[in-house]
Amino acid sequence: MFADRLIEAVRAKQTPLCVGLDPFAEKIPALFGDAREEIAAIERFGEAVVSLAAQHAGVFKPQLGLFEPYGPDGVRVAQEIVSEARALGMVVILDAKRGDIGTTAEGYARASFGQAPGFDADCVTVNPYLGADSIEPFLARAERDAKGVAVLVRTSNPGARDLQDLDCSGAPLWRRTAEMLAAQTGRLKGRSGWSGLMAVAGATYPEEARALRQTLPDALFLVPGYGAQGASAADAVAGFTMTPRGREGGVVNSSRGVTYPQGAQHAATLDAWREIVSTAMAGAAAELRAACNA
Amino acid sequence: MFADRLIEAVRAKQTPLCVGLDPFAEKIPALFGDAREEIAAIERFGEAVVSLAAQHAGVFKPQLGLFEPYGPDGVRVAQEIVSEARALGMVVILDAKRGDIGTTAEGYARASFGQAPGFDADCVTVNPYLGADSIEPFLARAERDAKGVAVLVRTSNPGARDLQDLDCSGAPLWRRTAEMLAAQTGRLKGRSGWSGLMAVAGATYPEEARALRQTLPDALFLVPGYGAQGASAADAVAGFTMTPRGREGGVVNSSRGVTYPQGAQHAATLDAWREIVSTAMAGAAAELRAACNA
Repeated sequence: MFADRLIEAVRAKQTPLCVGLDPFAEKIPALFGDAREEIAAIERFGEAVVSLAAQHAGVFKPQLGLFEPYGPDGVRVAQEIVSEARALGMVVILDAKRGDIGTTAEGYARASFGQAPGFDADCVTVNPYLGADSIEPFLARAERDAKGVAVLVRTSNPGARDLQDLDCSGAPLWRRTAEMLAAQTGRLKGRSGWSGLMAVAGATYPEEARALRQTLPDALFLVPGYGAQGASAADAVAGFTMTPRGREGGVVNSSRGVTYPQGAQHAATLDAWREIVSTAMAGAAAELRAACNA
Repeated sequence: MFADRLIEAVRAKQTPLCVGLDPFAEKIPALFGDAREEIAAIERFGEAVVSLAAQHAGVFKPQLGLFEPYGPDGVRVAQEIVSEARALGMVVILDAKRGDIGTTAEGYARASFGQAPGFDADCVTVNPYLGADSIEPFLARAERDAKGVAVLVRTSNPGARDLQDLDCSGAPLWRRTAEMLAAQTGRLKGRSGWSGLMAVAGATYPEEARALRQTLPDALFLVPGYGAQGASAADAVAGFTMTPRGREGGVVNSSRGVTYPQGAQHAATLDAWREIVSTAMAGAAAELRAACNA
């Protein structure tokens, strides 16, 4: 089951850190190639990031929206990076935020979970606005192929308030979304007791994450917003559950903070870049480890 | 402006018909090639559909989720079909239902609107769950490049009720979504008076479409659900506004009904297939024309 693979990856690395890859051509060091050939530089940079990430974290999250501007080549490179991460033993959450109905949702599920020419990712992020029948095709395929589905519940951006916090007859919309998912978590539940029907719960709103845990006691959380977006490690794990192993219950993503740390862009050599990025990843991993054990 | 291009395309064809392309390999006639080479068959089928669609409708909507399972090749074929439709003078709405924040949303906007390796589509469908700051990057790029943005407000599927109909302090969520958009429609308003900040309003819920028109008087509507999904032509144009030219205010999509009509799959020759599909498209165009003039 996906849930067990994910929680095992977290336990093996003793940190809930998930390394995110958001390719920004203008932030990639010149070491990775001519900025005029952006997608080639992204490919080399992505592979280098993955090889370091696999040393410090068990989970990897590529941001598909930043590969897509490169068209078919962007998709090809994203797929190669996903394959590489899986080959190195990482669990891959494809951040695609898809959402559609019926056969189209089946198409997105096949694109995300299917083997080549699909991504063969372990999990994909999904938007719930269209309702339960838009999530069902992802769930059905995830059940069949031992994959995971991470549904946006309470995101980390300021605009999350616009719709997700609206009062829906006594509870905010994000809680109604969570209630809609609660009936389904059992379908992706592993032997660990955790469910691979994940909830996206932004680190920038720790109170909401704690409340969300009440509604979804067994869902693994995917927590964006830690690091560059401003949330602390303690806030990031606020929705985790205290266990004899420490706080557990999901992964905390860091993208910019660990892939474009200070000094990395202008590193003189590849070894110097590796040292800077490795230190940033190790730091984030340790900080989150400490927060889970606090 | 996109809004003017779209409404001119509707007026020129005297019908709000938008032809949708949902590639289902198993429904494509054997005339278009060996089903074992699905993406090649989809490419030929898509080009044939577009060449007929351009005769009957001003607007074309490819469903990206059904190209993506084919990986980089799927994106390449989708882009070629979009180019072909635009070359034939059609306005293209890329049905991608994207939604993300900040720089990732900018990435999706660049992928949708940018020239090659982007899609260079006229408009893209967007999901509002993440709030106004997730729509802003699409709007900003649309303003700059004279493109359109079609935001999901009230979709046509049964599950639309799950979240979109929740009572948010006296009004359903879909109306709150519409209110969030109302402040922005002026930014994409054309000389026609219509705005290219479109609202997706399912034909299967005509009462909601009429109510939505009160909140968004100048937004063009993208109406799914007509035909194969069961809504009548009268229901489909329920949210349009009566003008001296008849009912106006958006486009009505038909995908399966006009691209896989009865008898088309087993047509003996390409000419026979063209005849069947052309008749279906002409029929839908005429039915919607009549509904606009009723």
